[in-house]
Amino acid sequence: MTPPAAGRAVVVGTGLIGGSIGLALRARGWHVSGTDRTAPVAERALALGALDRVGPDPDADITFVATPVGGVVDAVADALAGGPGLVTDVGSVKSPMLPLMAEARYVGGHPMAGSELEGVDGARADLFEGRTWVLTPLPGVTDDDALATVRAIVTDFGAEVLSLPPDRHDAMVATVSHVPHLTAATLMRLADQRATEHRALLRLAAGGFRDMTRIAAGHPGIWPDICAENRDAIVAELDELVAALGAMREVVAAGDRDALVGALEQAREARLSLPARYARPEDLAELRVPIPDRQGELARVTTLAAELGVSLVDLEIAHSVEGDQGVLILIVEAAHGERLLGGLLAQGYRPTLRPLA
Amino acid sequence: MTPPAAGRAVVVGTGLIGGSIGLALRARGWHVSGTDRTAPVAERALALGALDRVGPDPDADITFVATPVGGVVDAVADALAGGPGLVTDVGSVKSPMLPLMAEARYVGGHPMAGSELEGVDGARADLFEGRTWVLTPLPGVTDDDALATVRAIVTDFGAEVLSLPPDRHDAMVATVSHVPHLTAATLMRLADQRATEHRALLRLAAGGFRDMTRIAAGHPGIWPDICAENRDAIVAELDELVAALGAMREVVAAGDRDALVGALEQAREARLSLPARYARPEDLAELRVPIPDRQGELARVTTLAAELGVSLVDLEIAHSVEGDQGVLILIVEAAHGERLLGGLLAQGYRPTLRPLA
Repeated sequence: MTPPAAGRAVVVGTGLIGGSIGLALRARGWHVSGTDRTAPVAERALALGALDRVGPDPDADITFVATPVGGVVDAVADALAGGPGLVTDVGSVKSPMLPLMAEARYVGGHPMAGSELEGVDGARADLFEGRTWVLTPLPGVTDDDALATVRAIVTDFGAEVLSLPPDRHDAMVATVSHVPHLTAATLMRLADQRATEHRALLRLAAGGFRDMTRIAAGHPGIWPDICAENRDAIVAELDELVAALGAMREVVAAGDRDALVGALEQAREARLSLPARYARPEDLAELRVPIPDRQGELARVTTLAAELGVSLVDLEIAHSVEGDQGVLILIVEAAHGERLLGGLLAQGYRPTLRPLA
Repeated sequence: MTPPAAGRAVVVGTGLIGGSIGLALRARGWHVSGTDRTAPVAERALALGALDRVGPDPDADITFVATPVGGVVDAVADALAGGPGLVTDVGSVKSPMLPLMAEARYVGGHPMAGSELEGVDGARADLFEGRTWVLTPLPGVTDDDALATVRAIVTDFGAEVLSLPPDRHDAMVATVSHVPHLTAATLMRLADQRATEHRALLRLAAGGFRDMTRIAAGHPGIWPDICAENRDAIVAELDELVAALGAMREVVAAGDRDALVGALEQAREARLSLPARYARPEDLAELRVPIPDRQGELARVTTLAAELGVSLVDLEIAHSVEGDQGVLILIVEAAHGERLLGGLLAQGYRPTLRPLA
């Protein structure tokens, strides 16, 4: 796909995402204006090179709305009213945008990278490299050329476009993000209530529980807006979850071993085949290294990788059901896999190596 | 507490846990006999030095039953019938043991380290060092001297004893282990169902979802027994969870922002104050290092730690709600905290340091 000729763009909301869009556009020759409801934030974006100038641009070819989720509807409406150019946004919920999708030159979007709440100081021109960028055109309404242009621009940023109907997108983020978050918080509260008299009880929580509740440590600030904007999908998904847990309860109560194993086996297969978050998994390899729970073991492995010149793209410690015996999961560039495998074997580890895709 | 004089012990079930008990006892001068329903496993334990001999010992002062959970009741009953010594076990569910607790010389136990399903080759004398070891005496029934002896032995292994009524223990493990596991599997299945036509949809799953469903990748093998043995507690806890998620659904449906923030804030505080899994958190410090999502960043930080002679006791990558911008959480010995902090600052990171307790 040929990227569109560089033109004039506006970024509304110049935090991490908006700032990164500005940097990516300017790196490709675009002239970028920008605004932020907090004036110093726009000035900072200018100082960091994410903008050519602060202010609106009625002649812009395209406006990127990158405000926090609660302000997207108004900002998109303003941008559509303010000039004849295309408008797109990066909001994490798309149903509230449906009334605006009657406008053929609006294309809803949602890049899966960073958060619109984070600051412009973390902005980078390559933030979207290898990321999924969802676009939510409305069939028969959204203008084909408008969609093609937005797709070409974000593809040129290095993102991989996934086109989805808006309601499909919202149901999916409810399933894989919003409801899991609410569930993590609920599990944590239940455990806390059980342990009120005796907090040491929570020492019984092994690695699995820690993994499951980690996101509950996040700041609640963004959630009222997300739950308001995506209310219908979240409520529907919570109903599904409650029904599924109720079914699981019946399986346990009835002592139905076959149904239990069947359900867990299905979940296991799904988790093992969860697509990697890396857009180009074929370039990567995964090493699994059983490690005894000894202080310094992690340092030994990571130091070995460094000595061998192997970059660790990601590292995960998978704990066993009980205790902290674990498996170290290392993601490395495919070309480095054998080298690290050999080094680990030489040190007495029993690693396994497999391509990520 | 003075450890009891070394005497004669039997280990029934010589896998990871039983083997480690054997090694720990022998290191303290005990004579250890052992059996396993799989004869070569007992022979292997003997070869590894975890036993003095294979076979029963009717004159043993104490028997440790360390078979998989489904076989514990029979093995404890056999041990009680086979001689006059004390009997304890390491089963992860305690209610099924209640009928046997009428026997004053039986003390239920559950060390939070490793799993009875893992092999004896991973056994180590120091497996229980710093671990929580739950004992579940029945008030007014369990013999005080028997309890004191078991407590003294496992404390001498380096474990920290937590005494709990059996039903309390089972409810707590249902809350922090069994129900979270079933929930992870359920979340994974729901997401998988939503994505059936288009697996790429699962690319929308960010770090939080991956964390929450990680344990669902485990082998289902152990769960039918666990769910059978701890059925009542699991069913009760699933009921609580379903009720709590139903309440959360009402909060979202009603758009009750205050109630939502209140619940999430409560969960956040509970998660932040989750006791460390380290038994001596006062010896440790935590560094939080915001890291951009760039290949090699992890290697840079771990290499720096290695160069500075700082051992990483644990490492966690906390992902943001969206995308993979992350915070690296490093647990190091308290005495090394400042050194690594300085090194990271010198490299341009913005780490924070706090004592773990």
